[in-house]
Amino acid sequence: MKIAVDAMGGDRAPQVIIEGIENARDQFNDLEFLLYGDEQKVKPLIKNPERLTLINTTEEIAMGEEPVRAIRRKKDSSIVRAANAVKHGEADAFFSAGNTGAILAAGIFIIGRIKGIDRPGLTSILPVAQPGQQGQGFVYLDSGANAESKEKNLVEFAHLGRFYAQNVLNIQDPRVALLNNGAEADKGDQLHKAVHQDLANQKALNFIGNIESGDLLHGAADVVVSDGWTANAALKATEGSVRMMMTLIKDGILNGGLRAKLGYLLLRPVFHRIGHLMNPSQYGGAVLLGLKAPVVKAHGSADVTATTKAIQQIRTMINTKVIDQTVEFFSNEENVDNGTKNE
Amino acid sequence: MKIAVDAMGGDRAPQVIIEGIENARDQFNDLEFLLYGDEQKVKPLIKNPERLTLINTTEEIAMGEEPVRAIRRKKDSSIVRAANAVKHGEADAFFSAGNTGAILAAGIFIIGRIKGIDRPGLTSILPVAQPGQQGQGFVYLDSGANAESKEKNLVEFAHLGRFYAQNVLNIQDPRVALLNNGAEADKGDQLHKAVHQDLANQKALNFIGNIESGDLLHGAADVVVSDGWTANAALKATEGSVRMMMTLIKDGILNGGLRAKLGYLLLRPVFHRIGHLMNPSQYGGAVLLGLKAPVVKAHGSADVTATTKAIQQIRTMINTKVIDQTVEFFSNEENVDNGTKNE
Repeated sequence: MKIAVDAMGGDRAPQVIIEGIENARDQFNDLEFLLYGDEQKVKPLIKNPERLTLINTTEEIAMGEEPVRAIRRKKDSSIVRAANAVKHGEADAFFSAGNTGAILAAGIFIIGRIKGIDRPGLTSILPVAQPGQQGQGFVYLDSGANAESKEKNLVEFAHLGRFYAQNVLNIQDPRVALLNNGAEADKGDQLHKAVHQDLANQKALNFIGNIESGDLLHGAADVVVSDGWTANAALKATEGSVRMMMTLIKDGILNGGLRAKLGYLLLRPVFHRIGHLMNPSQYGGAVLLGLKAPVVKAHGSADVTATTKAIQQIRTMINTKVIDQTVEFFSNEENVDNGTKNE
Repeated sequence: MKIAVDAMGGDRAPQVIIEGIENARDQFNDLEFLLYGDEQKVKPLIKNPERLTLINTTEEIAMGEEPVRAIRRKKDSSIVRAANAVKHGEADAFFSAGNTGAILAAGIFIIGRIKGIDRPGLTSILPVAQPGQQGQGFVYLDSGANAESKEKNLVEFAHLGRFYAQNVLNIQDPRVALLNNGAEADKGDQLHKAVHQDLANQKALNFIGNIESGDLLHGAADVVVSDGWTANAALKATEGSVRMMMTLIKDGILNGGLRAKLGYLLLRPVFHRIGHLMNPSQYGGAVLLGLKAPVVKAHGSADVTATTKAIQQIRTMINTKVIDQTVEFFSNEENVDNGTKNE
């Protein structure tokens, strides 16, 4: 298995990327890496060159750059070169912690969509936090690849998420839910009412109905499907609130004198467990599902753990052949016919 | 000042409603109440009948009922009777903790919209949680009155929210932001790109640009404007995550043995302060802005504090004449011309 890595993407690249890749290499004998990046910066960071091939690139796509333009112009950027390696069969998968838009664009225009898929969905694994049900993540898409989604896109997301949950999270018959503004079947705007019906009609899906954004972390569903706009708003609000709660506790302890500091020492195991549970790094990167190869994007602030986890995730995707299964499913038009007949 | 109260709405009505109303009555000499509800249930709960007039009603609108149908058919329900009292000038404002949809419908069809307002917005006051900036709330609308919003609706929401922040939160020149999927001006779907331009063109607004849902509680804006769909998703995700964090801490303490319990005792003041800060009851009810009179809806789970706070809020709305100011502003078409010229 060969993974093409953008060594330059992310706030702390190439340092944490290389370290995370070396960790993953040391864990798994079957992994090889093609590292794309500025040789002068990357080479000194490599501790052990075993199963690492460094390919020098001369351009970089910055975090704020206009994505489509950037991937068209910067042919020798680490993102474009790594994506091309996948396209030409030199690598099996793509990893980056860089500019999300540029990764999406490289995924769509260079690596390409699976036949039958209109739009890929950015897929995050989020924690089930409900006490008593912790330990498993759930699949959440589209967490922001598309600002505007059509009815058929959400049906595609449901199937893409199902294959991912079955293969990578090892959940046999994943419960699929639609993110909506109420639990009842008739809730939502026109799009979500229509999608609810479509999902209920999909024979291959174990569709359990609507879920509200306030219940996301409760573990009620294994796959939560949404348009990219709403999912992005709910995900960012969730992440922001969790961070804010941690900030408030930290601030209270720092300003609470000796008593609070002692209290913190006693409760440290509790806080650590919560911090670990809620730490996005534990759940790997966001996967761009619907493409012809695994494309995984770690957060810009990704650390070594996040990088290593994302590589493990890619390895599982390759091992389980989740993409081959998806390709086969979508190659048969009847499989997704119900979901798109209204358009 | 007379306030028409639906005594039957809410999970713990009429008990907590009556108790909250009596608290508010005892605090403010200038308040009188018309209580609409089942006399047999309500009367025994009243400790002191001073400035309370109980009007018997024979019907109730339940939490799950279809709203428009319910207010058309149940003419003798507490919601419809209380709204009619406002319509006929017998009361200055309306309060309920009942079926949100029915309150919206009663507000729109019985009390009526301000001339020039296409759709009212459900307005919540949320806490600024950022350490160092706490103590003030911010205005958030539309938190869910409309599942689908048009460009001009969001411009109206911005002005409605500004008047509310100026008068009720006493913020002289409120900073108005648009909830969007990125900070830059060109972010968002077509609707949000267009609204961003419109808001930037409003002379009366101190528009500071986009805000992301992950930064809502940071205190960067005094008024956050959004379509009802997105605001509802982000608000519920925020509330749900805050609750989940509290659940996790509680669970950790309960299962952490003596050490954790001792830690909790020491950190209790910190937890209490956070619990108080994040408790929605502290910030009053949700106001349906854009109607001809104050219409305030407490959460279905409202307690005595929430009820009393909501009445205080109504009193401030009446005292500051915020609705008269809004009426005057919208009576001049030029004031909101820029925002709607594209439609």
